[in-house]
Amino acid sequence: MIINSTDNSRVKLWSKLKQKKYRDEYHLFVVEEKHLIEEAIAAGMLDTLIIRDGCDNPFDREAVYVSEAIMKKLSNNVSLNECIGICRIPENSAIKGTSFIILEQLQDPGNVGTIIRTACSFGYDAVLLSRDCASPYSYKTIQASQGAVFQIPVIVDDIEKLIAEVRSLGCTVYATTLDTDCFLSDVKVPDRYALLFGNEGQGLSEKAVKLSDCSVKIEMARFESLNVAIAMGICAYRFKH
Amino acid sequence: MIINSTDNSRVKLWSKLKQKKYRDEYHLFVVEEKHLIEEAIAAGMLDTLIIRDGCDNPFDREAVYVSEAIMKKLSNNVSLNECIGICRIPENSAIKGTSFIILEQLQDPGNVGTIIRTACSFGYDAVLLSRDCASPYSYKTIQASQGAVFQIPVIVDDIEKLIAEVRSLGCTVYATTLDTDCFLSDVKVPDRYALLFGNEGQGLSEKAVKLSDCSVKIEMARFESLNVAIAMGICAYRFKH
Repeated sequence: MIINSTDNSRVKLWSKLKQKKYRDEYHLFVVEEKHLIEEAIAAGMLDTLIIRDGCDNPFDREAVYVSEAIMKKLSNNVSLNECIGICRIPENSAIKGTSFIILEQLQDPGNVGTIIRTACSFGYDAVLLSRDCASPYSYKTIQASQGAVFQIPVIVDDIEKLIAEVRSLGCTVYATTLDTDCFLSDVKVPDRYALLFGNEGQGLSEKAVKLSDCSVKIEMARFESLNVAIAMGICAYRFKH
Repeated sequence: MIINSTDNSRVKLWSKLKQKKYRDEYHLFVVEEKHLIEEAIAAGMLDTLIIRDGCDNPFDREAVYVSEAIMKKLSNNVSLNECIGICRIPENSAIKGTSFIILEQLQDPGNVGTIIRTACSFGYDAVLLSRDCASPYSYKTIQASQGAVFQIPVIVDDIEKLIAEVRSLGCTVYATTLDTDCFLSDVKVPDRYALLFGNEGQGLSEKAVKLSDCSVKIEMARFESLNVAIAMGICAYRFKH
């Protein structure tokens, strides 16, 4: 099938997926690199493969062919894509496992994507996001996650509910905050745990800290400031090794 | 003094500072936030304070006032600045200390800035950059460094020379690479050391690995992929704690 009109109803729907509200409505998102489409296929999350007319289809999948104008309309990438994938956002599944990352109100999609990538690399069982976090399915987040969003469960829900669920699984919940005397290197790591990280500027809310079992901070020499994705990387590593 | 013409010779010079070659030529760079200007003043690196005409001067410093059009011309920031600072790039000083971060060919200014910020937080003595790294004095790097560039020496030179200099200070040089059997958690940290990180896609060059004393990798569960600023954060923390 070839689509040439930017007024085509499917093209109109796909182009709306740049906006979070339409991703949420249709449970779909866009990926724009060949290796990410491969990961989407492997994860069973690819809905529609779209190829620019005249380009080869490098996948063993049926594709919809579109004009250059449509490909540009669907893309965030500055260079012209040969292919993009429309992927399904999975339904929230039951939270399972023994180690989790929880994010509250993170605003930067690069940070959210990088944290998903890091959590995946260290074998965490899921990344849990409060509803006011940057979307895990935006272009910038997907790029920063480098496809990890296809390899580790990512669940968006109310922060109270997320914390309650991991506690019901027996996890000790560690709030990361500067306002504590407990240093990361002193933590005796339990069998089951969740690490909680807050907003880039304000950190965690009081509510989230209260719902946690204990607080922890990364010891620093000076400056008292780390990017939240860096702080997460350090804690995520320390708890696993 | 008030400048209203965008053709003014100083305005023309300042507006060129968005480009690396002119920053290198004039040894000047621009910072665009009040707290960063404060840090530049504290570090003795502020050359010229520029205030938008009609705005208050919040600093105890003489300022040059400029029109809105000029402020827009000088800024990278999407919102209109009230003040910006033209800062001096310090001359390369002698490398001093016992712990260093060395970067080879890092391309992303966000990564370079984040690494400078993290190195500063953990009390490293300097960040040393190969000449083909993203500039430490671009808008994006300065933003990501959150002012750390005013608090820790940042030195740009040939990679061979940088490695030779820290070795002459008695440092063991650790190359971070996936191609090694030495895990980060097994390292017995020496008194003096330098940690070497390479390009986002290719990692370290063979040359840089050969010039190092040993190689080290971060143990991972799967996916074998970490953002370089995350990898640096984890190693930087581990060597200090």
